[in-house]
Amino acid sequence: MTEVRWLDAREQMIWRGFLGATGSFMEHLDRQMQRDSGMPLAYFEILAVLSEMPGRSLRMSELAAMCRSSRSRLSHAVSRLEEAGWVRRRACESDKRGQFAELTDEGFKVLERAAPGHVTTVREHLFDVLTPQQLEQLDEITAAIKSGLSPQCDSVKAELQAEF
Amino acid sequence: MTEVRWLDAREQMIWRGFLGATGSFMEHLDRQMQRDSGMPLAYFEILAVLSEMPGRSLRMSELAAMCRSSRSRLSHAVSRLEEAGWVRRRACESDKRGQFAELTDEGFKVLERAAPGHVTTVREHLFDVLTPQQLEQLDEITAAIKSGLSPQCDSVKAELQAEF
Repeated sequence: MTEVRWLDAREQMIWRGFLGATGSFMEHLDRQMQRDSGMPLAYFEILAVLSEMPGRSLRMSELAAMCRSSRSRLSHAVSRLEEAGWVRRRACESDKRGQFAELTDEGFKVLERAAPGHVTTVREHLFDVLTPQQLEQLDEITAAIKSGLSPQCDSVKAELQAEF
Repeated sequence: MTEVRWLDAREQMIWRGFLGATGSFMEHLDRQMQRDSGMPLAYFEILAVLSEMPGRSLRMSELAAMCRSSRSRLSHAVSRLEEAGWVRRRACESDKRGQFAELTDEGFKVLERAAPGHVTTVREHLFDVLTPQQLEQLDEITAAIKSGLSPQCDSVKAELQAEF
């Protein structure tokens, strides 16, 4: 390995500030969801993604990519959501290897009940604490981070396409 | 509940950009750590926090707060790290209820081997993709988010102090 460029004091401060704020914010959102709706934030995200898809259903592999989840972690979550009656799995008719997750009517109702508290918490801790200018800056910053990670996204996309 | 202020289209875009970038970045750091050092990022963070403490040891409750982890999740992680021989638990001599986690010499060596790859990945996907101005903006943004969450931090601190 070439010589490591360690973080200097200012970079460490920025990095720890980033880790602390994003970690605490996600932790706070998760606690709010657990407390008010009895599920982890990751489950809410699965229900929310499915609700926006045609037929409220999505191929498991694509759902994993959209939730930035490993296949095994998503599969575990979907099994729990199936037990609750909020999601059902079904085989893909045109592709025997493919499997879809589908939001049930009961799952949609659960999502509708959970959404107001979640959105209120997001607004309170993000949109209400940042100025309009900071929100625009944040959008550019997250776009730059995302695009720096894009080789990974491309390989995930290639993997998804290879499955068809 | 008072009327929900739903996110408008622009706010949704900013929120999803934030979620996507921070989630993908953390996922990427976790995969790098798993692949190169065989442990989740959360375990690396525990070793790193302990390494900076006097005596490389910290009360479990404080370690949980510094790693933004629940007590039960931290306890599970420390048990796994104990099995690996990287951390040991010991009772607090002055406080029978307290328990400390201490980094072992072996754990310190593991941390030293894992750090270069981690720092290189952080630099590559954060410091190398943002301009100096964006890094300063990010620091102010994360400080604002953190301070908006501070009532929670204060209650955690109060809880910690109450334990002494």
